[in-house]
Amino acid sequence: MRALEDRLDLCSINTATLGHKAPIGAVIESVARFGFGGICPWRRDLETEDIHAVSRQIRDAGLSVSGYCRSTYLPAATTEAFRANVEDNIRAIDQAAIIGAACFVMVVGSLPTGSRDLPAARDQVAEGTATLLRHARSVGVRLALEPLHPMYANDRSCLNTIQQALDLADLLEPGAPEAPDLGLAIDVYHVWWDPALAEGIARAGAARRILGFHVCDWLVPTRDFLTDRGMMGDGVIDIPSVRAMVEAAGYNQLVEVEIFSDRDWWARPPEEALSVCAQRLQTVC
Amino acid sequence: MRALEDRLDLCSINTATLGHKAPIGAVIESVARFGFGGICPWRRDLETEDIHAVSRQIRDAGLSVSGYCRSTYLPAATTEAFRANVEDNIRAIDQAAIIGAACFVMVVGSLPTGSRDLPAARDQVAEGTATLLRHARSVGVRLALEPLHPMYANDRSCLNTIQQALDLADLLEPGAPEAPDLGLAIDVYHVWWDPALAEGIARAGAARRILGFHVCDWLVPTRDFLTDRGMMGDGVIDIPSVRAMVEAAGYNQLVEVEIFSDRDWWARPPEEALSVCAQRLQTVC
Repeated sequence: MRALEDRLDLCSINTATLGHKAPIGAVIESVARFGFGGICPWRRDLETEDIHAVSRQIRDAGLSVSGYCRSTYLPAATTEAFRANVEDNIRAIDQAAIIGAACFVMVVGSLPTGSRDLPAARDQVAEGTATLLRHARSVGVRLALEPLHPMYANDRSCLNTIQQALDLADLLEPGAPEAPDLGLAIDVYHVWWDPALAEGIARAGAARRILGFHVCDWLVPTRDFLTDRGMMGDGVIDIPSVRAMVEAAGYNQLVEVEIFSDRDWWARPPEEALSVCAQRLQTVC
Repeated sequence: MRALEDRLDLCSINTATLGHKAPIGAVIESVARFGFGGICPWRRDLETEDIHAVSRQIRDAGLSVSGYCRSTYLPAATTEAFRANVEDNIRAIDQAAIIGAACFVMVVGSLPTGSRDLPAARDQVAEGTATLLRHARSVGVRLALEPLHPMYANDRSCLNTIQQALDLADLLEPGAPEAPDLGLAIDVYHVWWDPALAEGIARAGAARRILGFHVCDWLVPTRDFLTDRGMMGDGVIDIPSVRAMVEAAGYNQLVEVEIFSDRDWWARPPEEALSVCAQRLQTVC
């Protein structure tokens, strides 16, 4: 496993970690000043910005783009709404191409309002992802399916394990390609509990499908389903053990911090959050 | 799949559904009066009671005992504490024998305070369950491992999928016994999200290891990790689809309602909760 001490250049900051409070220009500057190697912006960061200018600023700051967050949920109650979701993701993939993101992070969605049909939602995800994969290839963007913790199975994602996401990737991009265009973003928060974690990571690595690796921590107690993720070291996830598996499986790209924390880290000054991220990445990850 | 209309005799009420407010004697009487076929008491219901008298009352009321809830968590930070947990479960298994429970429901626990070592917790669960299985056999009680939703992986259970629980059962009780003493309690709340649900249920049924089947619903939004389960029909779980799988796999015992709901059902009169359980079991399960 790579040593992260004095190697913040191997690490990246997902802008959600700072709560989307400052303009992206200021965030890029702070992240670069701390010595991180990359950044992962969200679409909302770019809404009122000139994306070409932001892209130049990121490159000029010496940062790479570990990913671009994130897809609009795919499943919908009507064909029209489903198509609109796909179209919206095509626009986002074009943006991912402009900023040179290592991958477009896909949080795929799940049951449309009123539905209890998980298999149908999964079918829509497969159909939509197939369309997006064709477009992504045409603009040179790789898609990273992010399996989400099963507590989000009702709305945020009907992809909930590494094995399930790999099954979908193998279905849509068969033949064990040397450089897959469809892979996974593996976030410790979503997968740490999985009894098949080691097998899943090994399979993902063997298929060269690990496109991103995210860290944060699982707090005890967790007080909110979405916005109570912990800083690395403050929870119960054995992060070094998961990173060791991911890197043994061949992943050699950035380690990205993504923390949703309205009670704690979003309430602190961004510089403090970045400082603690830097310290914890080097000591407990 | 069995029709449940006019067949409340195929259904059971877990006493947690009523919030443990009334004495067990009154609960037994209410459950029987509504025509349910069974009841699943908790240890706390019996703490100040004469367990033999309660057992007689249940039988006299014409109810069977679909299960007895539940195990003390097994993993612990010290050998002494681990042994104490095993001993406490042995006492509970003796109680399960006295009340003639179809199974002793095992919620196995997970990380002891201060630990991040899930594999070690799983090892303690295996070791403790092996000991309990020997004792359970000696008193004629079957053990039902209950895989819990992965959102409980940190504390309540390091067994989080049907496949994982079956792996443990096969390990501790090998050789595909005709009438296993170690099986599973399958609760829709914990397993509905699982992409391997159909395979897991089929495997459990083929191994004759389905010892209990619990229903409730997953509310959107869910406002609390523990006590915000929904009444069947009020959430997004496709309960008939899960019950069809479980019964196709050979399960022909009681359908048990277990709802933890401090915001809603525990705040209502028990008779109202039982009435709605009866109605929903017959119409949406």
